[in-house]
Amino acid sequence: MKRTTPGRATAGSDLPHLAIECVRPELDGGRYPVKRLRGDRVIVTADIFKDGHDLLAARVRYRGPCDDKWRTAPLVPDGNQNDGWIGEFEVDRIGRWTFGVEAWTDAFGTWRSELEKKFAAGQDVASELLEGAELIAATARRAKFGMSRETLKRTAQLLRDSSLSQAQRVSAALAPELQQEMETEYVPGDLTTYPLELGIWVDRERAGFAAWYELFPRSTASVPGEHGTFADAERHLPRLADLGFDVIYLPPIHPIGITNRKGKNNALTAGPDDPGSPWAIGNEHGGHTAVDPRLGTIEDFEHFVQQAATLGMEVALDYALQCSPDHPWLKEHPDWFFIRPDGSLKYAENPPKKYQDIYPLNFWCKDREGLWNACRDVFLFWAERGVRTFRVDNPHTKAFVFWEWVIAEVQDRYPDTIFFAEAFTKPKRMKLLAKLGFTQSYTYFTWRNSASELRKYLTELATAPVADYMRGNLFTNTPDILNEYLVLGGRPAFRVRLLLAGTLLPLYGIYSGFELAENVPLKPGSEEYLNSEKYEVRLRDYAAPGNLNADIRRLNAVRRAEPALQRYTNLTFHHSDYEPILFYRKAAPPPRTAAVDGETEPDRPEGDLLIVVNTDPFHAHETMLNVPIEALGIRSDESYVVEDLLTGMRYTWRGARNYVRLDPALQVGHVFKVHRFG
Amino acid sequence: MKRTTPGRATAGSDLPHLAIECVRPELDGGRYPVKRLRGDRVIVTADIFKDGHDLLAARVRYRGPCDDKWRTAPLVPDGNQNDGWIGEFEVDRIGRWTFGVEAWTDAFGTWRSELEKKFAAGQDVASELLEGAELIAATARRAKFGMSRETLKRTAQLLRDSSLSQAQRVSAALAPELQQEMETEYVPGDLTTYPLELGIWVDRERAGFAAWYELFPRSTASVPGEHGTFADAERHLPRLADLGFDVIYLPPIHPIGITNRKGKNNALTAGPDDPGSPWAIGNEHGGHTAVDPRLGTIEDFEHFVQQAATLGMEVALDYALQCSPDHPWLKEHPDWFFIRPDGSLKYAENPPKKYQDIYPLNFWCKDREGLWNACRDVFLFWAERGVRTFRVDNPHTKAFVFWEWVIAEVQDRYPDTIFFAEAFTKPKRMKLLAKLGFTQSYTYFTWRNSASELRKYLTELATAPVADYMRGNLFTNTPDILNEYLVLGGRPAFRVRLLLAGTLLPLYGIYSGFELAENVPLKPGSEEYLNSEKYEVRLRDYAAPGNLNADIRRLNAVRRAEPALQRYTNLTFHHSDYEPILFYRKAAPPPRTAAVDGETEPDRPEGDLLIVVNTDPFHAHETMLNVPIEALGIRSDESYVVEDLLTGMRYTWRGARNYVRLDPALQVGHVFKVHRFG
Repeated sequence: MKRTTPGRATAGSDLPHLAIECVRPELDGGRYPVKRLRGDRVIVTADIFKDGHDLLAARVRYRGPCDDKWRTAPLVPDGNQNDGWIGEFEVDRIGRWTFGVEAWTDAFGTWRSELEKKFAAGQDVASELLEGAELIAATARRAKFGMSRETLKRTAQLLRDSSLSQAQRVSAALAPELQQEMETEYVPGDLTTYPLELGIWVDRERAGFAAWYELFPRSTASVPGEHGTFADAERHLPRLADLGFDVIYLPPIHPIGITNRKGKNNALTAGPDDPGSPWAIGNEHGGHTAVDPRLGTIEDFEHFVQQAATLGMEVALDYALQCSPDHPWLKEHPDWFFIRPDGSLKYAENPPKKYQDIYPLNFWCKDREGLWNACRDVFLFWAERGVRTFRVDNPHTKAFVFWEWVIAEVQDRYPDTIFFAEAFTKPKRMKLLAKLGFTQSYTYFTWRNSASELRKYLTELATAPVADYMRGNLFTNTPDILNEYLVLGGRPAFRVRLLLAGTLLPLYGIYSGFELAENVPLKPGSEEYLNSEKYEVRLRDYAAPGNLNADIRRLNAVRRAEPALQRYTNLTFHHSDYEPILFYRKAAPPPRTAAVDGETEPDRPEGDLLIVVNTDPFHAHETMLNVPIEALGIRSDESYVVEDLLTGMRYTWRGARNYVRLDPALQVGHVFKVHRFG
Repeated sequence: MKRTTPGRATAGSDLPHLAIECVRPELDGGRYPVKRLRGDRVIVTADIFKDGHDLLAARVRYRGPCDDKWRTAPLVPDGNQNDGWIGEFEVDRIGRWTFGVEAWTDAFGTWRSELEKKFAAGQDVASELLEGAELIAATARRAKFGMSRETLKRTAQLLRDSSLSQAQRVSAALAPELQQEMETEYVPGDLTTYPLELGIWVDRERAGFAAWYELFPRSTASVPGEHGTFADAERHLPRLADLGFDVIYLPPIHPIGITNRKGKNNALTAGPDDPGSPWAIGNEHGGHTAVDPRLGTIEDFEHFVQQAATLGMEVALDYALQCSPDHPWLKEHPDWFFIRPDGSLKYAENPPKKYQDIYPLNFWCKDREGLWNACRDVFLFWAERGVRTFRVDNPHTKAFVFWEWVIAEVQDRYPDTIFFAEAFTKPKRMKLLAKLGFTQSYTYFTWRNSASELRKYLTELATAPVADYMRGNLFTNTPDILNEYLVLGGRPAFRVRLLLAGTLLPLYGIYSGFELAENVPLKPGSEEYLNSEKYEVRLRDYAAPGNLNADIRRLNAVRRAEPALQRYTNLTFHHSDYEPILFYRKAAPPPRTAAVDGETEPDRPEGDLLIVVNTDPFHAHETMLNVPIEALGIRSDESYVVEDLLTGMRYTWRGARNYVRLDPALQVGHVFKVHRFG
């Protein structure tokens, strides 16, 4: 992050002897950290070279949160790249890491290599031996007292000893032990440091692998017509745990505004029993740090969180920075809002439309510090009550720099906090929010339904540079988004989208009702649900016929069993003759980089998955696939078994070209695990 | 270059309200300047946005050499890009320019647009009119005394005047004059500045467009067996001017070492009359600031330079930082060299090979400052004698940071100095030297002979990011490089390479002998010439039968007449059915960006060239071409004339698909100018 040397050289300054360029991973010249997960091995690459033909050496230095010393890991030439170097280190703690690159001339290695060549060519190397003695003696003088120092001193003397033959001295000079001693003790005179220190934000594992479920707790009562409570919602937790979800996301749980409350189906006037939109936050019972009394108390909420935890799940809260007309802040801090010339506060509008149930905050008001601190304290309030995951509503309508500040503030205290951006906005804005610190982001997935759209979009998401900082969470639907693909395609379409969401990326989610294939829009062409749960309580029979529970349970079980489905950047698309049948591979975790370990490349590990999905929910199709056999280590004439993890069926395939047929009425796709014979 | 705000936001600091990202042109995060030519219009692009829906405004600010104030040019939304903005400014002076980007909320425009929508929807806008009055009054208070200030004050009063109807007040609020006044006078409260200031190095025009000719002055005597002088070389200048060359490049003109001098064909021992390699610099007559007495005096050289200037040409000197065993520096400054343990100096070697006629300098010796200053002073010595172009020998074998320093030192005093890097090394090293300040670079052109290699390589060279900082100079041959393509292909191959070099990029060059199709290698497979001019004097009959003088003269005349051949980044390749026939377009200079001028796109100007070259020197081929008619503004059924500027022949073509046949025995290619009817 820090630029440590000036851009322009002057003759008197401490000039870099080597060139170090293009250090990766890096985001916007080090302005933002890239993201990784705890336990990840960070692969560092750089271009390192200098004038002439000397041998070079290089290392990455890195530092975890609270480390006061740099650690180092070697960089070695990357066989595939001109002047490219590669290395890696593990990030084993949550928080902010920093790394940089250093390189220097391998003076001893260069001398050793030249000596070897000259001696082999029968040249006189008297002068070379003296040069080497000089180098070794100098290293000995700077070495710590001990064995090495003494050994080096003796070797230097030996190389100068003209009573010995050149052959004897050369033999001592080329001894592998000497090379090792020199590698350890040599202090380079031309150590060159890359001018940038680069940042890595390391999240806990669940930030990168989780199945989400969005649940309105008020819709969980067991008696029709009643308003659900946290206690009611608790009774749904075993079902959700059984389905295999990891995160239960609740829309805002705060008191809901009365004034200008919206009625059913977004009616301008609410009926007396209409509960209102939970995103119109605040009434006489409190604002963002209060709980809607109809749901229960804060203690009830805490109990809910604990129950979820007992079942291995965590609760995500909605963080929506806007206020109903009845929010306490309007009275306590009218200066945090936009004030009209007549002294009244401004409600939200997108002229000529008016949203009189919502008052936006003025992030650049005079008391900016007071407002920003209050917004931060909302996070801290819930964090203190055990919440570590926040789904942030519409962050793109609030000051960008506020997010960078508040996320850092919260993560300084609770580094395990996950922020999930609901930034349904233009691409560069969505990406900037990810750069500024959001842990995950909603994506355009709901609007990418054809195979070609999915290929293009998911390749962008799952590949650097985007994958270095933005983690897409593939929601199939939300209370705001019922895509036409689901409306028209019905149950098979839901199965297609579930399978895609859960296998393309390690993060995905559904909003309740999805498992019942609910797909009635407010009106034709609308993405709003009819009788949207945003404005009314919706009781559901989650065991109703046609439900997708078995699909979901199976999918989540496969996700937990298969490391390939827990990784983000391991997605590659492959050819199928019939284009609407999507064919992709999720690669198993790679072995350590061979170059670093100095070992030969191990066999391709078991665990690669080949996934085939028929994106046409209406018709059965068959196709030939081009299996990436080279990547799988399969010979072109080799037979192997692919096991469908969804059904348990096994098929024998051979070589690259193989056949599938998918009838959406029966099965929308396969998740094949590859088994080789012998 | 300067990072003006800290990476991480804190609540109390001066926070950016807007996001400004991805400002271009930019090289390595602003670490190095990009390059442009005097008179170029620099197109600046940026991504600019903020939260919400406010209208924004933005500008580029820029500063030329010695300017003490910023100038500004507007940025406007780029219709083609989400959140992309574009603008331009002209760099009209040689030297270092700096630019940055600023943006802010267009508060008045936003208010105006919302007022318009609300009023059109029949809403009450009393509050909005008061808000506008506030904004206008505040602007008036900050405006300079004068007409604008008074007008703005009156308008603010008018908008507050409840005796007028809302319609009357809205009409005043929407007046275009008011908008213009506000655009001029408004001082934004949220001006956001891109944190980097980016650099542009601007060269004189010849740095970007020139035909070079390499000449050994010692080979210019009129009597066989004699050593040529500057006076002899002067007699060649009218011939070279007539052929249309712009730069005459001389290999080193300094005294040549005697000790270990190389003989003919690089023999280890020289005969008594062998002149030696001019790159073994220095003897009792002096070193890098002296002239070989056999060539004449410094005054003779100055006269040569003046004569060239009279003919519109300039002289480039070779700058080769290495010394013969007899160079005065070995005695005066032995500490500038590598010293062996026995106190002797080290000659060059690439073990087990030895180069005993050459002593390399130690750029990191203790007296580094003394050595570097002496190296700089060599440049200054010749600059004072009228030389402004240096061909730098093997820069990749000297400390990279030295070049950044010395080029800046020289250009501080002589900003019109051109440095041409002979960096035949790995790609990243070649590119780094360009980033560090070299004006031009040799390329791998001599080794790119097939059509597919040329397409790929020239696309890389002529496109950003590489074209932003590295200017390739396409030499067809050098004293070190006689490519097999020329050896095997003979005269037609020479004609092919000449045409390619002179039309693919605006910078090209030949080494003398090329015009006589000299192609006898030292031995089969060698890239060295037999009887290389590096080691002996070579007299030539430049009017010998089979010479390429007519080709060269015509090519250089066409290059001078056609602006399309004087530009660098205007090269695009197009399809020919027969792949070895290379087909490319050089586009005429573009009109000013329509977006900036607010004008509609003018008609495609005349002047685009379509170039067809048969890269097979042995056989005639015919092919159909896909003419890029859309880019040329030609309809698919339209007839047009293409005029071959090399021969004057005219052909009528129609639509996109057209036919050519090229017989290398007769004509290796066409340079077509497109003429539309009516």
